[in-house]
Amino acid sequence: MSEKISFFMKKYQDRIESLLLTVFPPELSEDPTVKASMYSLLAGGKRIRPVLMYMVAEMLCVELSVVDDFAAAMEMVHTYSLIHDDLPCMDNDTLRRGKPTCHVAHGEAFALLAGDALLNRAFERVLLAVNNNPHTARAAVCFSENTGICGMIGGQSIDLASEGKKIDTGRLCELHEKKTGALINASCLIPYYIYAAEKGEDKELYDLIHRFSAGTGLGFQINDDLLDVQADASVLGKSTGKDERDQKSTFVTVFGEKSAQQMLDDTYSDVFESLDELAERGWDVSELREFSELLLNRVQ
Amino acid sequence: MSEKISFFMKKYQDRIESLLLTVFPPELSEDPTVKASMYSLLAGGKRIRPVLMYMVAEMLCVELSVVDDFAAAMEMVHTYSLIHDDLPCMDNDTLRRGKPTCHVAHGEAFALLAGDALLNRAFERVLLAVNNNPHTARAAVCFSENTGICGMIGGQSIDLASEGKKIDTGRLCELHEKKTGALINASCLIPYYIYAAEKGEDKELYDLIHRFSAGTGLGFQINDDLLDVQADASVLGKSTGKDERDQKSTFVTVFGEKSAQQMLDDTYSDVFESLDELAERGWDVSELREFSELLLNRVQ
Repeated sequence: MSEKISFFMKKYQDRIESLLLTVFPPELSEDPTVKASMYSLLAGGKRIRPVLMYMVAEMLCVELSVVDDFAAAMEMVHTYSLIHDDLPCMDNDTLRRGKPTCHVAHGEAFALLAGDALLNRAFERVLLAVNNNPHTARAAVCFSENTGICGMIGGQSIDLASEGKKIDTGRLCELHEKKTGALINASCLIPYYIYAAEKGEDKELYDLIHRFSAGTGLGFQINDDLLDVQADASVLGKSTGKDERDQKSTFVTVFGEKSAQQMLDDTYSDVFESLDELAERGWDVSELREFSELLLNRVQ
Repeated sequence: MSEKISFFMKKYQDRIESLLLTVFPPELSEDPTVKASMYSLLAGGKRIRPVLMYMVAEMLCVELSVVDDFAAAMEMVHTYSLIHDDLPCMDNDTLRRGKPTCHVAHGEAFALLAGDALLNRAFERVLLAVNNNPHTARAAVCFSENTGICGMIGGQSIDLASEGKKIDTGRLCELHEKKTGALINASCLIPYYIYAAEKGEDKELYDLIHRFSAGTGLGFQINDDLLDVQADASVLGKSTGKDERDQKSTFVTVFGEKSAQQMLDDTYSDVFESLDELAERGWDVSELREFSELLLNRVQ
């Protein structure tokens, strides 16, 4: 990881960490649902989605303060999805980011409520943002569509329905476009929608950002699937080799490790091409380029 | 139940039923999470919250079409809360509205996702409404605050944390103001906020509607607690006598049946006083008056 990207990432990571500390009202800090929520929210996530959102905002010269509520909401939604995914009736995971999962630490009932509370609180934040700044209304719709049944939840549903079954390539891609891709996609498009509300639509710009985010999401997922078979659990901070044991359909279990690696390389070529085109149009993509390189080579 | 109220209720119930049929995109009708969601959404609820919302809107001459998205979203949130509440790690209920609960019919994993999907979809709907009509932005904030940790989820958290413990009157009231009261409150205040955005703030009107909705919510909960000990399971459509078995803190288990009945009577006196004052100010409260009488005397 270059010093530059680490500096950029730290700047954005620090920004989101301090926002996340204050997502619940202080008078509720002793509430057991709030405690369970905060346990998972501050469990050392890499904040990839907020960092991406801030970097695209910076590229488009959209004020980071306008994006803050969406960045916090995005990380809250990501965290709630992990809490619910880890529950015994879902993946039944006991380890996440190297720590006991939320239901192991706080009990199933409060983990369930913590997930609900984080999802709801994310939308509270988004709606306050829209109430304060109508320019963010379209971005908020983008947020809600990508977190729901047409996005992330839809992907989880396909994933669950596919367990133990052979699914075709198209369905596998749909699964991951929704399950992982949707939040990454929204993270990149939300700053665009705020930009467009302030400065006017720009279809070519939208298409390039969309191509970048789709490739980033797909590459991120293929990498994640590869890490499940290649990484060490102590480095990854969660159980490995689970996908095959759980009969999950992943890019590795469906195509094999070598083909999955090739798909990852192809996907990232596409990501860097879209960044080149953005650069040709005069946008400063230096942060996004280094961040994408980091994502491609991540080991945890 | 008078013929008039039954006519008014049917008008609003029919309106919300047809809205609820179309809350998910038709192309997802075979998705197992959507199926589980629709199973519970169309399980014969009385639609009390949407009916209240429409009646307050009608009183304030706010177009019902402007309220539609909020009415649908409110019922979706109410339904998701029931699905998650019924799960084995929460109340572990197998019967709801006379039918097997969602997780009994569709499995725990899809019931969990169905709840998440309904909550998210509710906010999708609210955000589309705000995007189409900025006059609804404050109403949307009211919606989100009352469904979350400062409202309904907060009440569920207190409820869960109080199981098997003695709690004082203040805490019991807070529990129910949030757990049941918050959604009823929001249902009445959302039309006010739309009215206020269109016609300007009216503090006295707000206070009267708030007093009406707070009393209605409290009365509804006391009645619900009384029904748990007084009603027949086959009429109620769910298990009875559970509160004492589950060591729940309710108005009946804390104060006894007789005192709870007295509190119910006092609460409804307050509800009707607030309606009288609204009528004195020229508002047509006939629907709300009959509906409140119905709620007071409900047996299921």
